[in-house]
Amino acid sequence: LGGMGPQATVDLQSKIISLTEAKRDQDHCDVWVANLASIPDRLAAIRGTGTSPLPILMDAMQKLAGLGVGVILMPCNTAHYWYEDLRRVCPVPFIHIADAAVRYLPAGARRAVVLGTAATLAMRFYDDRLAAHGLKVEAVPQFQPAVDLAIAAVKAGDLAKGSEALAPVLANLVEARVDAVVLACTELPIAASGAACAAYASVIVDPTLALAAAGVAWAESAKSKPA
Amino acid sequence: LGGMGPQATVDLQSKIISLTEAKRDQDHCDVWVANLASIPDRLAAIRGTGTSPLPILMDAMQKLAGLGVGVILMPCNTAHYWYEDLRRVCPVPFIHIADAAVRYLPAGARRAVVLGTAATLAMRFYDDRLAAHGLKVEAVPQFQPAVDLAIAAVKAGDLAKGSEALAPVLANLVEARVDAVVLACTELPIAASGAACAAYASVIVDPTLALAAAGVAWAESAKSKPA
Repeated sequence: LGGMGPQATVDLQSKIISLTEAKRDQDHCDVWVANLASIPDRLAAIRGTGTSPLPILMDAMQKLAGLGVGVILMPCNTAHYWYEDLRRVCPVPFIHIADAAVRYLPAGARRAVVLGTAATLAMRFYDDRLAAHGLKVEAVPQFQPAVDLAIAAVKAGDLAKGSEALAPVLANLVEARVDAVVLACTELPIAASGAACAAYASVIVDPTLALAAAGVAWAESAKSKPA
Repeated sequence: LGGMGPQATVDLQSKIISLTEAKRDQDHCDVWVANLASIPDRLAAIRGTGTSPLPILMDAMQKLAGLGVGVILMPCNTAHYWYEDLRRVCPVPFIHIADAAVRYLPAGARRAVVLGTAATLAMRFYDDRLAAHGLKVEAVPQFQPAVDLAIAAVKAGDLAKGSEALAPVLANLVEARVDAVVLACTELPIAASGAACAAYASVIVDPTLALAAAGVAWAESAKSKPA
């Protein structure tokens, strides 16, 4: 259930493919993808300045369920604002991106930072989950402009610019001994895949990768069950 | 209409995104994707040793049409064996990958080679179209094992191996003054995107990129028409 943005939905699919042990096409999962870039802007809707994306999200979710999918993944953190509205009526399991993400934290990490849109940070859905794993989340509002720039650059297709905007933020956090940086906007792992960010891989938590892993794990368990 | 293989379907989506002039998510096209890796093996079916993929392709095509898509793209050359069967009942335009590809030939090219599965080459659907553009297609059966290896490597997720298998083929063709190499299996442009093949970009015809361009052109023209 994607398109928010379209490249993030492609990133999720790539990660599903690379996490699958496969020698031939038929070893991979079947994936139906609603890569619906026209879904109204999530931030604007939350701020009250734009149309709600909920009706289109609801419609796309129902269409995916109607196609017979067994689990739904939504590679957009900000859209999880409507997660409960969607989950309540979703006829199949719908994995929360933060539930997936906290299963993949750097070993022994204590100090976490969550980077994402202002709306995602305000929802605080990573905070409790990280606290439950013994991590303390620290706010870094001084980096929000750089994070917003990195997100916008990826959405505009300029991955190098996104990576260069994100790299100094990661450098600062590593320097300050933060040991887990949750890239809680699905454009950020794409920015972080650029060369400028390569040095910081060990502290990064990639919720898109975690969501892909959750999807692959679901598919594996479905395969091993009798039909 | 994809999954043949799954990475090729991701490649098509990436190319649709990168060919779209966009500053924000909503500038991109909406794309519904059937990334159905379980579609039976096309080569085996054509050789008479496996199940036909046609019923599943037909079902997926009908489902996509039912979702309201306006044009269908199928990023698999070999599956075009069933193109006419599908097109005949397809309620929306269905672009043939070779029709898209021959719109993007290197300027002044005269001598072409088509690389793909043995089944795609046997169908000869590129040959007439290339001839109509003044290109003579030359057969290179001596490279089929290397081409098959490159395709299998990409399907198994080993892009470096795919690229290394394809590079000597491209080197030989360039050395022999072939000036258009059609990568007529959707795994081959992925292999060709690897570093080992970077030197041969000027002779390459990428049908996946051409198919993406055709899709984007369709979406642009649909946008400019009154609803």
